[in-house]
Amino acid sequence: MAESFLEQLTVPRGSVDLSSYDPEDTPGFSGDKGDAADTLTALGDELSDLQERLFAEGRHGGTRSVLLVLQGMDTSGKGGIVRHAVGLVDPQGVHITSFKAPTEEERQHDFLWRVEPRVPEPGMLGVFDRSHYEDVLIARVRGLASPDEIERRYDAINAFERRLVDGGTTVLKCMLHISADEQKKRLQRRLDSPDTSWKFIPSDIDERRFWPAYMEAYEIALERTGTEHAPWLVVPGDRKWYGKLAVAQVLLETFRRLDPAWPAPTFDVDEQRRRLAEEDPLS
Amino acid sequence: MAESFLEQLTVPRGSVDLSSYDPEDTPGFSGDKGDAADTLTALGDELSDLQERLFAEGRHGGTRSVLLVLQGMDTSGKGGIVRHAVGLVDPQGVHITSFKAPTEEERQHDFLWRVEPRVPEPGMLGVFDRSHYEDVLIARVRGLASPDEIERRYDAINAFERRLVDGGTTVLKCMLHISADEQKKRLQRRLDSPDTSWKFIPSDIDERRFWPAYMEAYEIALERTGTEHAPWLVVPGDRKWYGKLAVAQVLLETFRRLDPAWPAPTFDVDEQRRRLAEEDPLS
Repeated sequence: MAESFLEQLTVPRGSVDLSSYDPEDTPGFSGDKGDAADTLTALGDELSDLQERLFAEGRHGGTRSVLLVLQGMDTSGKGGIVRHAVGLVDPQGVHITSFKAPTEEERQHDFLWRVEPRVPEPGMLGVFDRSHYEDVLIARVRGLASPDEIERRYDAINAFERRLVDGGTTVLKCMLHISADEQKKRLQRRLDSPDTSWKFIPSDIDERRFWPAYMEAYEIALERTGTEHAPWLVVPGDRKWYGKLAVAQVLLETFRRLDPAWPAPTFDVDEQRRRLAEEDPLS
Repeated sequence: MAESFLEQLTVPRGSVDLSSYDPEDTPGFSGDKGDAADTLTALGDELSDLQERLFAEGRHGGTRSVLLVLQGMDTSGKGGIVRHAVGLVDPQGVHITSFKAPTEEERQHDFLWRVEPRVPEPGMLGVFDRSHYEDVLIARVRGLASPDEIERRYDAINAFERRLVDGGTTVLKCMLHISADEQKKRLQRRLDSPDTSWKFIPSDIDERRFWPAYMEAYEIALERTGTEHAPWLVVPGDRKWYGKLAVAQVLLETFRRLDPAWPAPTFDVDEQRRRLAEEDPLS
């Protein structure tokens, strides 16, 4: 556990070849599913404590925040990560946005228009379940925007994220990397039970024919928007327990680096103790 | 555990006398703090399952949702309830709003203007940490609005909540009832440690002089807005563990009554199984 998940999972700048990343890999972790569950539970207290400190900082004039962007093919485990990794911290400090297909109104604006109001406030952990990256992923694969417009968006995203980072937000972008075979198994399992079949739509199968185009679109997105200030991480996703653990570890390491401290009282604590003891209006 | 928390905690219509409610009471529960923690943990799975069913229903055309309004004096335990009771369910199905003192812009609109966009979407559990009730509580006690305006607001709230209920939202309004002595102890404890002193502001002590006026404002609010469609619950709050357990139980009973079912597939499951097996474009 000594090696940093952040460092191991961060995609180096330059050309990206997703086929060189094994979705079954478990970088930084040699245990099994049970070990991962134990480790996840064990890190909850520290993560939760650090998150509350950042929240407190945000209430006392701090400007720092964290934005976790989760991208991945359907069934890649985004929901489980939000539930079990993000779910380790106090829900009051978390703001989750699930981005769906844009509405009629949203489509009439620039693609970042609907994203801007969703960036985390000071002290908060913002989570994007899908994000502005859909506008260079599905938009590219399915031709929802012109090639020129797609090109423009990479630069617009970089400028947008640069501004977030300059404003005090740590931007973590995770691509949950699953194999097409694993997706097939997961779609099959979804059909097996009423508590998951509601998530299935028949077009999920049709969409699979674009798998190679999606992988290419991800590679281009990772190359064009993997920056010093907002790097991409590839999180192998074929083992769901690894995805949850890895994202929790990445959050933990990020909060550790931020190292938020409890805000110092802006009043004389002893004076307030005395007031409560002696001047209390209700005593 | 056989008796309903919802029924026991619901305030009967008519005149309300808060002094007749003991903040140390634990209606519906005869165990101690440890038992309460065990019970809270034990009900998590069922609550979580029911919440996910409602969420699924919301994604498939359902219109039902739940709104939990938490009101109470400072230190009454709202934060702990959000964390430990609401925290039992998937954060993706929860939308928490913390209402602060209204901004300049908000004050230029009707008091419900900022509340309207925060009501839960179909399938969601919305949580208000403070709410539109501040506009008839602190507003009344500190004279932030004219007596005529305050009068108008009770009716406006009833009409607003009536509309929510008609639209499919179950509205649960909980007043966390603590004693002035318990608040004093909690304020003292806040001062003892840097992980809580950031929540303290010296004016918290001054505000205590209005305690009787706040209790009266609560009584009037409970009388005027405790309706058949959106009743008030008084949750004794001097034992923090009871507040958490009671609200979790109230949520559980509410979701049980809603009895959401997994949406039936709108497609032929066997047909889709066959397609995945035989027509998969990637195979």
